[in-house]
Amino acid sequence: MSISGPSWITAQAGQPGHDSAPDLDAGSDAVPGLMAGVRRSSHRLADGRELIYFDDAGPEDDTPRRVVHDTRALRPARHECEVRRDPLTGDWIAIAADRNDRTYLPPAQECPLCPTAPGGWPSEVPTPDYDVVVFENRFPSLSLRAPEVPATVDGDPLWPRRPGTGRCEVVCFTSDHGSSFASLSPQRARTVIEAWADRTRELSGFDGIEQVVCFENRGQEIGVTLPHPHGQVYGYPYLTPRTDALVRRCREHAAAGAELDLVGTVLAAEQASGRRIVAESRSWTAFVPAAARWPVEVHLVPHRAVPDLAALDGTEREELSYLYLDLLRRLDRYFPGVPSLPYIAAWHQAPVHVDRSLVRLHLQVFSVLRAPGKLKYLAGSESAMAAWVSDVRPEAIAARLREVG
Amino acid sequence: MSISGPSWITAQAGQPGHDSAPDLDAGSDAVPGLMAGVRRSSHRLADGRELIYFDDAGPEDDTPRRVVHDTRALRPARHECEVRRDPLTGDWIAIAADRNDRTYLPPAQECPLCPTAPGGWPSEVPTPDYDVVVFENRFPSLSLRAPEVPATVDGDPLWPRRPGTGRCEVVCFTSDHGSSFASLSPQRARTVIEAWADRTRELSGFDGIEQVVCFENRGQEIGVTLPHPHGQVYGYPYLTPRTDALVRRCREHAAAGAELDLVGTVLAAEQASGRRIVAESRSWTAFVPAAARWPVEVHLVPHRAVPDLAALDGTEREELSYLYLDLLRRLDRYFPGVPSLPYIAAWHQAPVHVDRSLVRLHLQVFSVLRAPGKLKYLAGSESAMAAWVSDVRPEAIAARLREVG
Repeated sequence: MSISGPSWITAQAGQPGHDSAPDLDAGSDAVPGLMAGVRRSSHRLADGRELIYFDDAGPEDDTPRRVVHDTRALRPARHECEVRRDPLTGDWIAIAADRNDRTYLPPAQECPLCPTAPGGWPSEVPTPDYDVVVFENRFPSLSLRAPEVPATVDGDPLWPRRPGTGRCEVVCFTSDHGSSFASLSPQRARTVIEAWADRTRELSGFDGIEQVVCFENRGQEIGVTLPHPHGQVYGYPYLTPRTDALVRRCREHAAAGAELDLVGTVLAAEQASGRRIVAESRSWTAFVPAAARWPVEVHLVPHRAVPDLAALDGTEREELSYLYLDLLRRLDRYFPGVPSLPYIAAWHQAPVHVDRSLVRLHLQVFSVLRAPGKLKYLAGSESAMAAWVSDVRPEAIAARLREVG
Repeated sequence: MSISGPSWITAQAGQPGHDSAPDLDAGSDAVPGLMAGVRRSSHRLADGRELIYFDDAGPEDDTPRRVVHDTRALRPARHECEVRRDPLTGDWIAIAADRNDRTYLPPAQECPLCPTAPGGWPSEVPTPDYDVVVFENRFPSLSLRAPEVPATVDGDPLWPRRPGTGRCEVVCFTSDHGSSFASLSPQRARTVIEAWADRTRELSGFDGIEQVVCFENRGQEIGVTLPHPHGQVYGYPYLTPRTDALVRRCREHAAAGAELDLVGTVLAAEQASGRRIVAESRSWTAFVPAAARWPVEVHLVPHRAVPDLAALDGTEREELSYLYLDLLRRLDRYFPGVPSLPYIAAWHQAPVHVDRSLVRLHLQVFSVLRAPGKLKYLAGSESAMAAWVSDVRPEAIAARLREVG
């Protein structure tokens, strides 16, 4: 199947479906917000978790719906998740005491993210192939089925407490265990973007979810326990502290007479300076932030003020598939001798219910590698005091990222 | 030399010396804020950095002052430190571009923190022995000699920029390379506490320093590049984001009618509940916080509302030396088969110039180990969104810490 370009995009992105209850059981291929060109079908795993296929497809494609039958005898998952508010910082902390026994670096022949060969070891994906597949994490940090808990810890209002309501999903980018996001075709990258947009839209409609974050952790150096190329989607029952800080900063800037859209203001400043621009297209600009906190860091910001991935139009999604692949491939050329840079890539999206005009969608990609074989650790200054020390000038990061383009 | 107990403490701690300019060159043994029983002497290394000995001593001790001669031909250290404010979070980020070449896991015979044997390889400590020694970090993140920089990045007020004014010191707890803080005698622990108090007091008096943090990173798992038992003291030119959040929370609580001293309020609530108390003395209580974010975490809080270590009286310091050793020894028994738990221990202290009554001194000790051989990594949720997910219930941490007491 060849890439036929933007011409096969015939539908427009819908807005987040806050007003419609999600129908988890529908195996629907026609979903608001999903672009044409991708086939979506929803199914259930043996323990009731949802599994959704996003299959690459051209405009003429009419592949029949997948037949899914999970043969495993799985006990229904436990979801002992709760959140407690730390009085000293105001941050909500998720506590998921069951997760400590989760799958940890299994042998390659028992990768839970690989497809299940006929008669073979049953993975989390009970079909012999897939393009992009999303399923509910078996060991979630947050769950829509989290049990009720008392409203405080030990009856003291100093410690508010709530169920760990939320959703944790796994997004497999390819059935090829030894591949990577950077190795995907633009068409496949586009299918992942459609999956991200779909998950953002759907999770935004679930009761109790306040923010949706799509992210990828890549590399054992940052703790990835499954090497199969995959990312995650978290629906949080609170605004994450990072986004909370951004919202507060937007208000501070606006009080001083500036635009509310602070991410847009930063984008304009980076474009005006030009010193840290890495790459750009008609709809997107990638730059190293002027106060980068990681040894390698790049932000990717859309030119249009959109709150989340679901609000991107077809052209923006199409350009993103090419530009994001370009960025990831630069990262893998960043350090000589490091063909597979460990990284974290996270989509900062607007809160679901409030302040949607304040937070413009942006991607943050960063690495903890500060030199070949040397990691940037988050020790006393960063982990205890949240005070970041960087060893690298942002302008030097940008120069290197341009050089390896 | 035996431990003679609190009777040999004859002087009282002074208050932070904000009003007197520090005399770096004085080799003074009589310093405000330093308890009797410890001998202090200040010297210079070959490149001009300060080196301070804190020697264990009883009341009758009159050991002559140390003779220090650093024979190395060191080039004057460079201090290309600056801080830039991240517009999206409001956090100041320190950028120290020279540090990326710092000493990294040297062979044991070239440990820069060991004493220098006569005729032997010259370390950072040019005497054949020491008890506790403090010196300016050769590869500092922040420096009092940081160069001037333009007030903004690229002339845009969106990106404030300042010199990386501050101080980064190394505190060697013992000359014994293979030892640990937990293995120190109570007398030696007390000498370290005196050194911390002294450094807090002196750094608080330096122009441009807004907060002083004493901390220890222990274990290669959290990135320690020198295994010799040591900690660090940072004097920051800004309030660290964690303390900034605490100050903001104190004001929010006070606006709702509660005490300004939020740490004291939390202490009282933990004492009232009792469920997470680990250990206590007349002047201190150790507990696992109700919303602990790390797989192992304990806080140690003084019963008296003091802003920093320099304000502790002799009894409090004496009790601390015993209680802190007790806590660290529990940590080394926490996981079967892990006799040396990696940990970060950080003293949260009040801002130097403002809001001193809001922030009560407290110690936070935590580990990134979630099981033998398994680390808690800070990946997408924590590193990108600052949203912590813990795998362990705080009450379970407290139960285990009590069990191994």
